[in-house]
Amino acid sequence: MTDIRVQSLEQPIDVSEYLFRRLYEVGVRSVHGVPGDYNLVALDYLHKSGLQWVGSVNELNAAYAADGYARVNKIGALVTTFGVGELSAINGVAGAFSEHIPVVHIVGYPSTVSQRNGMLLHHTLGNGDFNVFANMSAQISCDMAKLNNPAEIADQIDHALRQCWVHSRPVYITLPTDMAQAKVEGARLSKAIDLSEPSNDAEKEDYVVDVILKYLNSAKNPMLLVDACAIRHRVLSEIHDLIDKTGLPVFVTPMGKSAINESHTNFGGVYAGDGSHPLEVKNIVEASDLIITIGALKSDFNTAGFSYRTSQLKSIDLHSDHCIVRYSTYPGIRMKGVLQKLVQKVDPRQLSIQKTPAVRNEVKANQDESPTITQAWFWPKVGEFFRENDIVVTETGTANFGIWDTKFPTGVTALSQVLWGSIGWSVGACQGAALAARDSGRSRRTILFVGDGSFQLTAQEVSTMIRHKLNAIIFVICNEGFTIERFIHGMDASYNDIVAWDNKGLVDVFGGKGVAQKYTVKTKDELCSLFADHDFSAAREMQFVELHMPKKDAPRALVMTAQASAKTNARAE
Amino acid sequence: MTDIRVQSLEQPIDVSEYLFRRLYEVGVRSVHGVPGDYNLVALDYLHKSGLQWVGSVNELNAAYAADGYARVNKIGALVTTFGVGELSAINGVAGAFSEHIPVVHIVGYPSTVSQRNGMLLHHTLGNGDFNVFANMSAQISCDMAKLNNPAEIADQIDHALRQCWVHSRPVYITLPTDMAQAKVEGARLSKAIDLSEPSNDAEKEDYVVDVILKYLNSAKNPMLLVDACAIRHRVLSEIHDLIDKTGLPVFVTPMGKSAINESHTNFGGVYAGDGSHPLEVKNIVEASDLIITIGALKSDFNTAGFSYRTSQLKSIDLHSDHCIVRYSTYPGIRMKGVLQKLVQKVDPRQLSIQKTPAVRNEVKANQDESPTITQAWFWPKVGEFFRENDIVVTETGTANFGIWDTKFPTGVTALSQVLWGSIGWSVGACQGAALAARDSGRSRRTILFVGDGSFQLTAQEVSTMIRHKLNAIIFVICNEGFTIERFIHGMDASYNDIVAWDNKGLVDVFGGKGVAQKYTVKTKDELCSLFADHDFSAAREMQFVELHMPKKDAPRALVMTAQASAKTNARAE
Repeated sequence: MTDIRVQSLEQPIDVSEYLFRRLYEVGVRSVHGVPGDYNLVALDYLHKSGLQWVGSVNELNAAYAADGYARVNKIGALVTTFGVGELSAINGVAGAFSEHIPVVHIVGYPSTVSQRNGMLLHHTLGNGDFNVFANMSAQISCDMAKLNNPAEIADQIDHALRQCWVHSRPVYITLPTDMAQAKVEGARLSKAIDLSEPSNDAEKEDYVVDVILKYLNSAKNPMLLVDACAIRHRVLSEIHDLIDKTGLPVFVTPMGKSAINESHTNFGGVYAGDGSHPLEVKNIVEASDLIITIGALKSDFNTAGFSYRTSQLKSIDLHSDHCIVRYSTYPGIRMKGVLQKLVQKVDPRQLSIQKTPAVRNEVKANQDESPTITQAWFWPKVGEFFRENDIVVTETGTANFGIWDTKFPTGVTALSQVLWGSIGWSVGACQGAALAARDSGRSRRTILFVGDGSFQLTAQEVSTMIRHKLNAIIFVICNEGFTIERFIHGMDASYNDIVAWDNKGLVDVFGGKGVAQKYTVKTKDELCSLFADHDFSAAREMQFVELHMPKKDAPRALVMTAQASAKTNARAE
Repeated sequence: MTDIRVQSLEQPIDVSEYLFRRLYEVGVRSVHGVPGDYNLVALDYLHKSGLQWVGSVNELNAAYAADGYARVNKIGALVTTFGVGELSAINGVAGAFSEHIPVVHIVGYPSTVSQRNGMLLHHTLGNGDFNVFANMSAQISCDMAKLNNPAEIADQIDHALRQCWVHSRPVYITLPTDMAQAKVEGARLSKAIDLSEPSNDAEKEDYVVDVILKYLNSAKNPMLLVDACAIRHRVLSEIHDLIDKTGLPVFVTPMGKSAINESHTNFGGVYAGDGSHPLEVKNIVEASDLIITIGALKSDFNTAGFSYRTSQLKSIDLHSDHCIVRYSTYPGIRMKGVLQKLVQKVDPRQLSIQKTPAVRNEVKANQDESPTITQAWFWPKVGEFFRENDIVVTETGTANFGIWDTKFPTGVTALSQVLWGSIGWSVGACQGAALAARDSGRSRRTILFVGDGSFQLTAQEVSTMIRHKLNAIIFVICNEGFTIERFIHGMDASYNDIVAWDNKGLVDVFGGKGVAQKYTVKTKDELCSLFADHDFSAAREMQFVELHMPKKDAPRALVMTAQASAKTNARAE
């Protein structure tokens, strides 16, 4: 029967090649993962499909890297092996689900015959159940494609990739060993997968736009607040069109950082309730009589501990799959179409626009007499070091909060994991981001800020960066352990301490001798000299900096958010 | 209402303390894990409960370590934080489930109030669902205890710990932040948790024992075959009693390695079908007219690719919760009671016992002229280095197969993960095993064999060993990548290559300077000198050996099993 089916194919192509050529088509160039016996045969097809194999040191790092790659490249891919490999990666994929990152997770499965026979294979629970791991991943995937029947496989792959793109979330694809070389119709490849945005019902969309315009035109002090999902669901050009046409003041949330060109005269800074930067932003935003938020994700860490003081009566919320105007919800109305139509229809002459205060890197205001590098001084200072189009990766902890105080040049892409907040993520993400930058053919620097505690979880991904000659600039903030946790609970508890590592030595151990520059920076002057060093900032090879900061120093916003967290944790009623 | 309940308690005690004192009672002394904000308050209770906090570098390593600890200590414990932490650990816990290892996994949860309100907290998927991760773990846990109501918590904890012990598998306990300090009845602690083996129905048990004796007495050439679950379900003393009384020949499977005192005159070696060692074991076992297997787990890697040639008509299979005599199944009849009664009732004079051939470390037979250290020569050779009561940890790959050729001294405990086979496991497991040995107060060496590919996944757990001054002897087999995978598929494929690390340098970087000895061994002579070095073998501090072996050399059993795997993977019908 198989033979008859194959004979009826116009251009028979092996499943692995079909899958990988589709990945190439949607924009993937490098595939992350770790080899395992259930995926080895498939890996042979990467090169001929135009894809590069990365080969991370472990699956969690690979998942983090695929996430970082997707944030820069708009989509990423990860290959693991059944059971052991996929479960090692699952925290990274869950993070991508949580944070709306499109990652294609391909899992090499035992053959369909072995599955049917319930064989007692390695990498199983020994109970003949081959669905248990897929069941786990179903909860963190927007589509599941179990490639068990060649007649359905091409459809399943095309559908999964569209879902991944449109929902901007992970999909899970099983590739059993006996399907890796099964034949499917290659002629399909001449027609691209449909990645177009689903369109709104035109009448409904008009209605919503008119309602929004009514409120916008009558507002005295309207503004935009841009959050994570505006980035994830790809409406940044629409937002910039809207700002350019209207002159509306625009603010970002922490997760929306870098969504807006911060050199734009209408950019007003970061709104995060009590954690806003500049501080006056809090008053400006909360005094507004109309806040149009775009892609909001109001999590605890994104709002400095739920410290927003805004009213729903003065709010319009645009989301990827619905809109809310004051208390009216419009399900199924996607923000992209609404924003495009708003740009067309809005008449700037009817708007009342307040001037947006300027944002700057406040280095002088945070300067002090001591040579010590404080968090308050560092983050504005590093803003002066950044260049156009840099990619800035910050780890959960001091870096994720400190970066609120940094004003970016045009074109910067900032990566952070404020909602999921898995420590160690940034090291893998940095690898993926730097690789995506190179795959794009553009010359962009990738700059990582990670604390010494978080660095230990995933440090060996530096080895993968060296393997692929990725010239990231890496700042390991040496402050003796888990500072964010100290501020939540256990300021002096030994469980928040770490083993002191020779971090610079690690670079040599991982093969970085002669291909990476290493620095230790302990004072403000040393940091200023480093920033002034042309070789350092050109980053023609990896630049690795041990940056020493005090153990109990933290950005203002972190201190505030940590206190709120401790309170929420303890609350009994 | 809470107050009235608390007032009615005889000896109010905080939940965290109750939980940890129960852990202490069942034998745990060191608790593995990584701090996270949802578990910090609980961690404050470890010390006062007599427990030590380990503080691994990441959660997967911690889970592997808790597994290794449990294999030596009979039970282990792991503390992670909600979402990010538990999912990073889940592969390690799944391995413990697969391999029947009792690990208590305690997850710090957001407060019950936050859960009820569906708060948009960090470490969530952003969808208000606080059950999703517990649902994942439910599939790899033999009991779930969600500690949400103080009135039920003490019962839940006691029940979970009994299940963990009796089923010898992981349990999952949620500890919300607002429950960590809730009050429960401390007076219960005066009565120990019941960890007794469930007893069989006496009449049924007698029946089964009589059937077994009938076949045993009439067999001409009966023997025992001891497998993984004999270790996990704690029947080794019963088996030794049976051997001592009857003189029955006894063989072990790869997963049963070290279950039997290999100095015992009745020990005949490793049976794994075509992969048996010594090779003649295959013929001896397969010629038997009655094989009593105890705790069988006939997975592909445990049977050298399903190469058993034994007949069910000549088999009696004793399991933890049922027995099978030829084709008759006895559900609910547990092997422990059966074995105890067998020992009582068996009359050695009625048995026909064949002499067991001697097992030795066949160094000479595998000697060759070359200085190169071959796999065939190494594994018997290392048998000469082992001492009584050593703990031997082998990684999936060449080590796991090579160790079949090693004869152990009395009292050796061998750890391997043949069924689950997650690469990198052994480094964490070695940390846990060494710590369990120290916690036991006995002087035992812990010796690790890990390939350079697998080592990279979890290398930083060496840092935790250094932190706790665990003097493991670590052999990193340097053979340039994933050798087991080369033999399955892609002998020369670049995806099976790794970055060359300076592994010895890693020890210094992790704080090992001055507290660890390092060696490079490339020839047979160098290895013999090292084994003869008293300081090395005394291991008063960590001993770290880079052991160079050829890239394409593998133990005979691995080559055979890998070929079988490749065939199973490719099989289309």
